[in-house]
Amino acid sequence: MDDKPTSIAIVGAGTIGLSFAALHLAKNPDCHVIIFDTRPDLQDYVNTSLPGYLTDVDVAQCLTRLTITTSLEEAVKNADVVQEQGPENLDFKQKIWPEIEEAASKDALFWSSTSGIPASKQSQHMQDRSRLVVVHPYNPPHVMPLLEVVPSPLTSQDVIDRTLSFWQSLGRVPVLIRKECTGFVANRLAFALFREACSLVAQGVVGVEDLDSVVQSSMGPRWTVAGPFKSYHAGGGEGGLQSFMEKIGGTVQSCWDASDADVRSHDVRVNAAWQEEVCRQTHEAYGVVDVSERDRKTRGVLEALQDAILPGTS
Amino acid sequence: MDDKPTSIAIVGAGTIGLSFAALHLAKNPDCHVIIFDTRPDLQDYVNTSLPGYLTDVDVAQCLTRLTITTSLEEAVKNADVVQEQGPENLDFKQKIWPEIEEAASKDALFWSSTSGIPASKQSQHMQDRSRLVVVHPYNPPHVMPLLEVVPSPLTSQDVIDRTLSFWQSLGRVPVLIRKECTGFVANRLAFALFREACSLVAQGVVGVEDLDSVVQSSMGPRWTVAGPFKSYHAGGGEGGLQSFMEKIGGTVQSCWDASDADVRSHDVRVNAAWQEEVCRQTHEAYGVVDVSERDRKTRGVLEALQDAILPGTS
Repeated sequence: MDDKPTSIAIVGAGTIGLSFAALHLAKNPDCHVIIFDTRPDLQDYVNTSLPGYLTDVDVAQCLTRLTITTSLEEAVKNADVVQEQGPENLDFKQKIWPEIEEAASKDALFWSSTSGIPASKQSQHMQDRSRLVVVHPYNPPHVMPLLEVVPSPLTSQDVIDRTLSFWQSLGRVPVLIRKECTGFVANRLAFALFREACSLVAQGVVGVEDLDSVVQSSMGPRWTVAGPFKSYHAGGGEGGLQSFMEKIGGTVQSCWDASDADVRSHDVRVNAAWQEEVCRQTHEAYGVVDVSERDRKTRGVLEALQDAILPGTS
Repeated sequence: MDDKPTSIAIVGAGTIGLSFAALHLAKNPDCHVIIFDTRPDLQDYVNTSLPGYLTDVDVAQCLTRLTITTSLEEAVKNADVVQEQGPENLDFKQKIWPEIEEAASKDALFWSSTSGIPASKQSQHMQDRSRLVVVHPYNPPHVMPLLEVVPSPLTSQDVIDRTLSFWQSLGRVPVLIRKECTGFVANRLAFALFREACSLVAQGVVGVEDLDSVVQSSMGPRWTVAGPFKSYHAGGGEGGLQSFMEKIGGTVQSCWDASDADVRSHDVRVNAAWQEEVCRQTHEAYGVVDVSERDRKTRGVLEALQDAILPGTS
């Protein structure tokens, strides 16, 4: 941005909002964060909840750079970035962006954390629709590095470029999605595997906890190091992915065919009969999950990967 | 097994065979491994290739516990475990198991590393079909912890139990698959996500390298720590997976519907038109992949996870 410390306005103080606030405060030691929400207990709620998101940093120092407000105008008027995570509701989003546009400076970046409402729809009543871009996190954003940057066809290249470099400078992984599509990319991929998982459990091929063990001890660690294309490209040896498809393509197609047949014959749609048994097994296996333990382990995995990437380590 | 050191016969010295040989030698410091293959340069080939699989161990000490042979009878006659990774060909497997059965002791465990030919088909000409079970690794097995244990309906419970406890005692992750099915579980899951990945790239939503970045910075690390059911169960808060499906089910179904429509409209079958562009992008992004670097990083991730599981660390 420029010489003064970056100012981030967080619009909506749910779990995503607080997680982003913590991320900015922790990763960018000069920035100022201002949280806007209309909930009456905002001060108490933020004081109680936010420290839980601030790990491995000086919490008191972070909190000196935090303001909260119940005035949208006050939140956004001096912001360099306005990051919205209000209700997942088109009317709300179409109404708030013109209000933000009215009150914010003309250079401020406008980001929506929506998981599904594209910028092209959210921006419909804005004066300058080129200003809005979706920045969709993988939850929780203070732990997970990914940000899906999803412009509308109207979003300006300048907004895209500044958004990508903002996140790169924070050491996160912003990925540009070239076309708006249902669910963006991360959820589309994850839900495709999840459907197959539900289908295999519905058929009695494997139990819920065993299926999780399969993933945790195979493609989880593999795909942390090398995504699916790089993995199968490696699997093809010198001939790469093309060679892999020549050798293994028959097996791949037979799995895809079996998958389609099984999904149909077990009626693997949301809320169909299979779902009750899958939910029952999951509850029986895990009770209530301790997400702080999950996040601590995830940090360990990401740090190990970071260490392994540095030259000279092994 | 019993008092004497465990003896493992590796039938077929391809990359999977050598990787398994290395795993046994490294993880079980008393065991003896005997490798059978008919290739004429077997001694040179094993001497040259095997040390590359033996990391963080005394290679010379491991090699004192290794024998190679071009006689199947010699390989299996004193073995506690016969682990087969010959050609992925039903005739070969149906022919070799009766030969192994004839030469081996009556208590030896018989494991096939096949990625797709079920034990019920392989065992067709055996005298005692209850002895065979598939033990399918995730490549390479000396790095990746998963073993899919896939019995046929005829496999005895004793064989299943002894197989599971063998791998548990080596600190690996054997998972019992309850029904033989196309592709078993790990590949079914991985290929389901891979199809969605191919579909999204084919549509121009995202590039190959960016798609890999999405996976590496989101579901890879997440699923290393908590598989898909545990993850979405956590995502549902106190109500767990059922609550998640109530809140997010509409989004999940719309992603599944979009996925089916896109796969159809872009004809995402093996060898269809989309494949050339996906292979081209993958080759351009990665050239020839350094799998030793991949395996080193994977080990780092798995060790970090192991450390994070130990109490008192954080």
